[in-house]
Amino acid sequence: MSNEPVGVIGLGAIGGGVARSLVNAGLVVHGCDLNPDAMAKFVDAGGHAADRPATVGKAARVVFLFVINAGQARTVLFGDTGLAEAMPSDGIVISCVTMAPSEAAAIGEELGAKGIRMIDAPTSGGAANAAAGKTKFMAAGAPEAIEGAMFALQAAADTVYRVGDDIGQGSAVKVVHQLLAGVHISAAMEAMALGMKMNIEPGALYDVVTGCAGNSWMFENRVPHVLDGDYTPLSSVEIFVKDLGLVLDAGKQERFPLPVAAAAHQQFLAASAAGYGLEDDAAVIKVYADLAGLKLPEGKD
Amino acid sequence: MSNEPVGVIGLGAIGGGVARSLVNAGLVVHGCDLNPDAMAKFVDAGGHAADRPATVGKAARVVFLFVINAGQARTVLFGDTGLAEAMPSDGIVISCVTMAPSEAAAIGEELGAKGIRMIDAPTSGGAANAAAGKTKFMAAGAPEAIEGAMFALQAAADTVYRVGDDIGQGSAVKVVHQLLAGVHISAAMEAMALGMKMNIEPGALYDVVTGCAGNSWMFENRVPHVLDGDYTPLSSVEIFVKDLGLVLDAGKQERFPLPVAAAAHQQFLAASAAGYGLEDDAAVIKVYADLAGLKLPEGKD
Repeated sequence: MSNEPVGVIGLGAIGGGVARSLVNAGLVVHGCDLNPDAMAKFVDAGGHAADRPATVGKAARVVFLFVINAGQARTVLFGDTGLAEAMPSDGIVISCVTMAPSEAAAIGEELGAKGIRMIDAPTSGGAANAAAGKTKFMAAGAPEAIEGAMFALQAAADTVYRVGDDIGQGSAVKVVHQLLAGVHISAAMEAMALGMKMNIEPGALYDVVTGCAGNSWMFENRVPHVLDGDYTPLSSVEIFVKDLGLVLDAGKQERFPLPVAAAAHQQFLAASAAGYGLEDDAAVIKVYADLAGLKLPEGKD
Repeated sequence: MSNEPVGVIGLGAIGGGVARSLVNAGLVVHGCDLNPDAMAKFVDAGGHAADRPATVGKAARVVFLFVINAGQARTVLFGDTGLAEAMPSDGIVISCVTMAPSEAAAIGEELGAKGIRMIDAPTSGGAANAAAGKTKFMAAGAPEAIEGAMFALQAAADTVYRVGDDIGQGSAVKVVHQLLAGVHISAAMEAMALGMKMNIEPGALYDVVTGCAGNSWMFENRVPHVLDGDYTPLSSVEIFVKDLGLVLDAGKQERFPLPVAAAAHQQFLAASAAGYGLEDDAAVIKVYADLAGLKLPEGKD
């Protein structure tokens, strides 16, 4: 067990869970978030509150970054009172941000120019797994940087996948992963809606698909939200408007056609256009239901 | 254990496996296929050869039907020396054919007019599971018909899902299932190809996706064909040209838009257009690879 303190910037659904799992693993954790509720929850769990990114950078050599996009990452790293100016020259930033591979590579270079190493390590697993110390990291970066931060990664991880030595490769794997995740959600909703339109009982449909070769992780996880009529956002429609957008941007940058991902993205955009952007991503099914006058299962109350 | 003989018409990949699993379960099985090799394999396994569908209909009250589409089903059932004319009036036809729900319903009505009951029971599981008696049946039909044939279904089944009382509902569930299966295969190939284009090692990508929330049954099952460079057709591109075609036909009939399935269908059509129709359905990845000059993993020899 390392005695070295660790930092976490961004204490939302995933970052907050990872921070708590690091505390639970016995590490001293310095955390920072603009949202006072997220901060209070972190401090209650045993974390040390930092007032700004620079404070985290002075307290910890290894810092996780959990913000929503590349723009926020730049602000946290390079803005006033940012992390980069405060970190020691052997510092390691573990970026868990979902962003374009080219953005990750650019940020990695800027950090490198200041002597700070970056690990490009987007995650999978969701909030509940994060809080349980079971996040999966898709980690790319210089082997010695990854080894240097492994004590922190492992304290929060179910699995640390090593996907390459170059910054941007972790983000590329995440982009590919989100292509699949987003297509699977929209396909699940298209399929369930078609089944209901053909008068199949949705629970029977769920049982068959989850027992057969048509199953996906997302189908199994999201369709129960439809069956329960519960669209409380565990992950919102807008997340996939953004993430499938990143997928299509990567395709454009690579001059690589992605017709299936593009069709799926349109369904998330349709859901957002219809006013469901902040609902759970399973609300994509409402686009189909609204069009065809389908009655979806209702919630318990 | 029933002493009642059972019939199987169509002894190909799935039908032949189901027939052998029925023999292995101790049943007397009468089988028929136009292909002499399929017949020889069936007889070697202990089956009784029938020269035409009518011969099967005279020997067995419960008959499985494993042909490729509704047209073949009509020929077998209602053609010269067909099954329907030869079956007793309490006969039960278990149709495992993938066809439009409306076609299944029409065939069920025609059989009903002759006093023959139909069970609409498409399958999932593939050839290996069929031979092992582990097929999954999506069964719809009158409860007394399903009960009357349950000894035969269970002898071949991993699971018999009951999806409704009306003929056509089994086919509807299969259509929904194939929507998911087809979209998942094309998404798997689009995602793997994008990852390779971004210089991610395909084996690392496979490990991450199968361990994370982007996984699907099809991704896990088909991507190894790509990694091994082995496109020996376990299920061919043309199967999904057909099955996603049925999905889109169902959408048209129901006046129900299916944009994600339509995009996936185009990729199977593209693969067929490029000459890969009779290769394994994983060959959809070659469409992306050919366009972008990607080098795919090669086979062992």
